[in-house]
Amino acid sequence: MSSATRVLIIGTGLIGTSAGLALRERGVSVWLSDTDQASVRLAAQLGAGEPLPDDGGRARADVALIAVPPDAVAATLADAQARGLARWYTDVASVKVLPVRQARELGCDLASYVPGHPLAGRERHGPAAARADLFLGRTWALCPLPETSPGALSAVTALATSCGADTVITRAATHDRWVALVSHAPHVVAAAMAARLEKAPPGALGLAGQGLRDVTRIAAGDPRLWGQILAANAAPVARVLAEVAADLAKAASTLVTYADAPAAEDAVSGLLRRGRAGTSRIPGKHGGTPRDFTLVQVVIRDQPGELARLFAAAGDAGVNIEDVRIEHSPGLPVGVAELYVRPAEAAFLLAAAEKGGWPVRR
Amino acid sequence: MSSATRVLIIGTGLIGTSAGLALRERGVSVWLSDTDQASVRLAAQLGAGEPLPDDGGRARADVALIAVPPDAVAATLADAQARGLARWYTDVASVKVLPVRQARELGCDLASYVPGHPLAGRERHGPAAARADLFLGRTWALCPLPETSPGALSAVTALATSCGADTVITRAATHDRWVALVSHAPHVVAAAMAARLEKAPPGALGLAGQGLRDVTRIAAGDPRLWGQILAANAAPVARVLAEVAADLAKAASTLVTYADAPAAEDAVSGLLRRGRAGTSRIPGKHGGTPRDFTLVQVVIRDQPGELARLFAAAGDAGVNIEDVRIEHSPGLPVGVAELYVRPAEAAFLLAAAEKGGWPVRR
Repeated sequence: MSSATRVLIIGTGLIGTSAGLALRERGVSVWLSDTDQASVRLAAQLGAGEPLPDDGGRARADVALIAVPPDAVAATLADAQARGLARWYTDVASVKVLPVRQARELGCDLASYVPGHPLAGRERHGPAAARADLFLGRTWALCPLPETSPGALSAVTALATSCGADTVITRAATHDRWVALVSHAPHVVAAAMAARLEKAPPGALGLAGQGLRDVTRIAAGDPRLWGQILAANAAPVARVLAEVAADLAKAASTLVTYADAPAAEDAVSGLLRRGRAGTSRIPGKHGGTPRDFTLVQVVIRDQPGELARLFAAAGDAGVNIEDVRIEHSPGLPVGVAELYVRPAEAAFLLAAAEKGGWPVRR
Repeated sequence: MSSATRVLIIGTGLIGTSAGLALRERGVSVWLSDTDQASVRLAAQLGAGEPLPDDGGRARADVALIAVPPDAVAATLADAQARGLARWYTDVASVKVLPVRQARELGCDLASYVPGHPLAGRERHGPAAARADLFLGRTWALCPLPETSPGALSAVTALATSCGADTVITRAATHDRWVALVSHAPHVVAAAMAARLEKAPPGALGLAGQGLRDVTRIAAGDPRLWGQILAANAAPVARVLAEVAADLAKAASTLVTYADAPAAEDAVSGLLRRGRAGTSRIPGKHGGTPRDFTLVQVVIRDQPGELARLFAAAGDAGVNIEDVRIEHSPGLPVGVAELYVRPAEAAFLLAAAEKGGWPVRR
């Protein structure tokens, strides 16, 4: 997408503003529009583009990116097309079948429209949470319709790649089934587990560990937006949830029926084995599985400069840290840095850390 | 716990060997014992202690730490007491009611026994995965019985704190209900969600993000050990699972019944709101909630030494990085370091990063 290109962003929330920031970094001209003028001003101040000029319909962009909630996409598209705001159109809603059906019903021009969905988001929302790198290396699904023109697909693909994303082409119905499985249903499952904590005794929460935090983390997302996403992808999500519910209900009744008996262990172990098999199929960072990296654990003191020394030692040894997590020790002045490195580099990192005086364990 | 103390560890798996390593670092004498002699040798080679001498029953430790699977605790305790291996006894099983009941049935001496459970673990197991810092800052639950003598509780408390843990005293039945809620049920919920991925189309997995990875991570644990834990805490776990299953089944049927209607959104939003309220009650690192820290995002190049420079700049500015995550960009030479710092230090970190030439966004 060249700097001669002009993109109109309709909806300056997290996704729209982030796209504006990414495109501005590439020198693309960006107009911003939103029903909320304060949101447009903030996005413009952040550097995401300029407010759409109010010049009686003479403004016309190459591509319009419609970044509004799922149930507002079709009406926004119809309005933008009626005003001739752009040559090509796309959207970013997490569901695709619903806005496509509504766009058909409203008689939108489908030749100029490519339904899209960048697989990127955050637990926060609004323009202030936007990041130019939000789409960097993320998948951006495009769901061209039978009517979609090659020119539209080409322009929207260029927009997505200009934001740093990798595009994947799929059908709208397939997309919705896939995200129901890997995104929408997991959100409800996390919420259902987290809901059990709402009235939990404080002592129980005192025994909570990282496992519980991980299982429930995404349940902290915006209930209103997620409610709308789930309602708009109701059937595929309901199918997955019903299967999960059935497995959990069966596990519960088996445990009660055969308490303390080997049969209970066997029954529930079957579900656990299927679960482990499932986790092993999730792609990890860099497109590989997490186990492609070797974990090196280093005990560190919880003070300024300690990690800098460690990373400097790693860098000096030519080792690239692929990922890092710090496990803190509440109330104690030490923690454990968990460093993930390529297997061939683990020995070098171990040697460097030991030479630097850090206790290590691989 | 002084260096004059002698601890006998029965069971040199992950937990037993980690305790041995922690106690040896404090100068405590440690004997190691396991039905698997190879495991004892490996634990001894790692520095967790010395094999229990085979001197016809003259060896006697101050405290015996029984680190065997839940359903083997009582028999192991009875055998060790019959041989007079130690003055006081404790165990580390994730469930407490079952081993206590079995110990009573076997006629064990309960005055010298303190049922215990360190809230620490890993997705890996065996002595090779052991770490001296496994218990550092973790909670170690102790469940003294009416018969337990003060001397036993005092000795076992000293053992736990010598391993770096914080002890919490509770009743066995209360403990089991609490861990059912915050550990055992979440494990099954993660497994049930992950099980849906076992036969998922590869395209769907290509759309998976960090949310799915977090929700399902703990499901990668050992199915056999977890099956035993769940069977041994069957009733409390089943109660939580039945509630989660009911919420999910209701969400599924509501979505199907009222698809695309506002009622579907309302019904499922209620569950999402309860979920968000639940997540807000989980204690975070340093005993505070994660939002006690301010997130500073810095774009970094994916190469050796880059993080070292950044951490050095933070250290020079007197800023302590409380937590860090790296978001990689598959196929691209850049990533985003997400740095968590105390709110008062965020401005200093931003200034230091900008001065060092890193693009930042708060």
